[in-house]
Amino acid sequence: MHSISIIPVPGIPQIHPGDSLPTLLLEAIDRAGIGLQNSDILIVCQKIISKAEGAIVDLKTVTPSPFAQQIATLWEKDPRAVEVVLQESSRIVRMKNGVVITETKHGWVCANSGVDESNSIADDIVIVLPKDIDASARSLRLALQERRGVTLGVIITDTFGRPWRDGLVEFALGVSGFEPLLDLRGSTDMRGRELHHTVVAVADELAAAAGLVMEKGAGVPAVIIRGYQFTPAEGGSKTLIRPAEADLFR
Amino acid sequence: MHSISIIPVPGIPQIHPGDSLPTLLLEAIDRAGIGLQNSDILIVCQKIISKAEGAIVDLKTVTPSPFAQQIATLWEKDPRAVEVVLQESSRIVRMKNGVVITETKHGWVCANSGVDESNSIADDIVIVLPKDIDASARSLRLALQERRGVTLGVIITDTFGRPWRDGLVEFALGVSGFEPLLDLRGSTDMRGRELHHTVVAVADELAAAAGLVMEKGAGVPAVIIRGYQFTPAEGGSKTLIRPAEADLFR
Repeated sequence: MHSISIIPVPGIPQIHPGDSLPTLLLEAIDRAGIGLQNSDILIVCQKIISKAEGAIVDLKTVTPSPFAQQIATLWEKDPRAVEVVLQESSRIVRMKNGVVITETKHGWVCANSGVDESNSIADDIVIVLPKDIDASARSLRLALQERRGVTLGVIITDTFGRPWRDGLVEFALGVSGFEPLLDLRGSTDMRGRELHHTVVAVADELAAAAGLVMEKGAGVPAVIIRGYQFTPAEGGSKTLIRPAEADLFR
Repeated sequence: MHSISIIPVPGIPQIHPGDSLPTLLLEAIDRAGIGLQNSDILIVCQKIISKAEGAIVDLKTVTPSPFAQQIATLWEKDPRAVEVVLQESSRIVRMKNGVVITETKHGWVCANSGVDESNSIADDIVIVLPKDIDASARSLRLALQERRGVTLGVIITDTFGRPWRDGLVEFALGVSGFEPLLDLRGSTDMRGRELHHTVVAVADELAAAAGLVMEKGAGVPAVIIRGYQFTPAEGGSKTLIRPAEADLFR
């Protein structure tokens, strides 16, 4: 079994709505002498996808609902930002101590529907998650594959907290080019006993690995993981979402 | 910023109670030509630690309580294994559909208190988590450092499920040689705004990265991560456990 490399892509400029991400990423990748090889997995932080796609909201255009105002008053938040969090959610999972855990319209459970006020473009602007994160991942993958003639995987990530454990970790929200779950069921352990329950969330492990070099504010929103062997497939992140009826914590 | 390598350590033999893990690990590391370098982080699957320490239970010696028998009947489980799960726990967090989520005596929330019937040594033997996982990590780190004269980090991991997301991921349960949380608070984003909430669980990101090559049953229970820059410190995993009063999901 070979080693896997986690390669940060430095020198990606500030991204603005309408920018061509494939072009800017390839320029940075080439400038750093990294290149793109067959079976590379490109891991990109959600924020630059959202910025390029214009998935941003100008708070000056937002009218907070009475409910958003009430929450904002209680916890000393910007009522307009609370309104955006509510509009980006399909359901509130927990609401306590100033923390709002929601389920986003995509199905991700996270704080504040993934709405981010840091790493923004200007004051009064918040960044929201891309509308269809798998489609964003797919479109980026196809553009890069076409330009370079290689087979790739693409993951779009965001930084989430977890229940029970402190500290944030990078998670996969959009996946293209391979299946996010690696199903080892039916394979056997070293004594020949079946490993019944082992389905590995490799897309989340890849995202977390990329998180090691993505440290926020350091200007490294893209990472290449080279040497991880995967079976090319259409992909998509939906299988990472545990169905509500099988979930003990909603 | 440099690349990080995830290096699998092949050729580790089956581990038995009383085996010297430092010796067996170093032999495998040297045989594979990997060696140990300053600032390497050695990531070891909990199971080989438990086996070496004898943290195993012979089910033939276990008398299930009436409560364990009741659960076992309901969900068609081995009542003796259920008894071990209960004894290894300090609290039951959820119990539904045949799944028992407990808080272990260390404070980890996971399925079945981390008790594992696969990858075992013999029938009727289950593997439990090491008693003091940080102490196990520390003792392994000190033994390796002394023999090789290098500064290392050590993480002991296990494979856990997560709420809301399908698929298992490798998590850090024992940490020695560095702090598991990287506190970026006070640092600023690219617009000079403070990143208030950013504390990264780097030990979990390192564990997940190692998970990419640890695939169960493939006989790779140890991984070296090389090139991740950390500040040497005593470490310990306790700061990864979110205090109950700050947790919205217990």
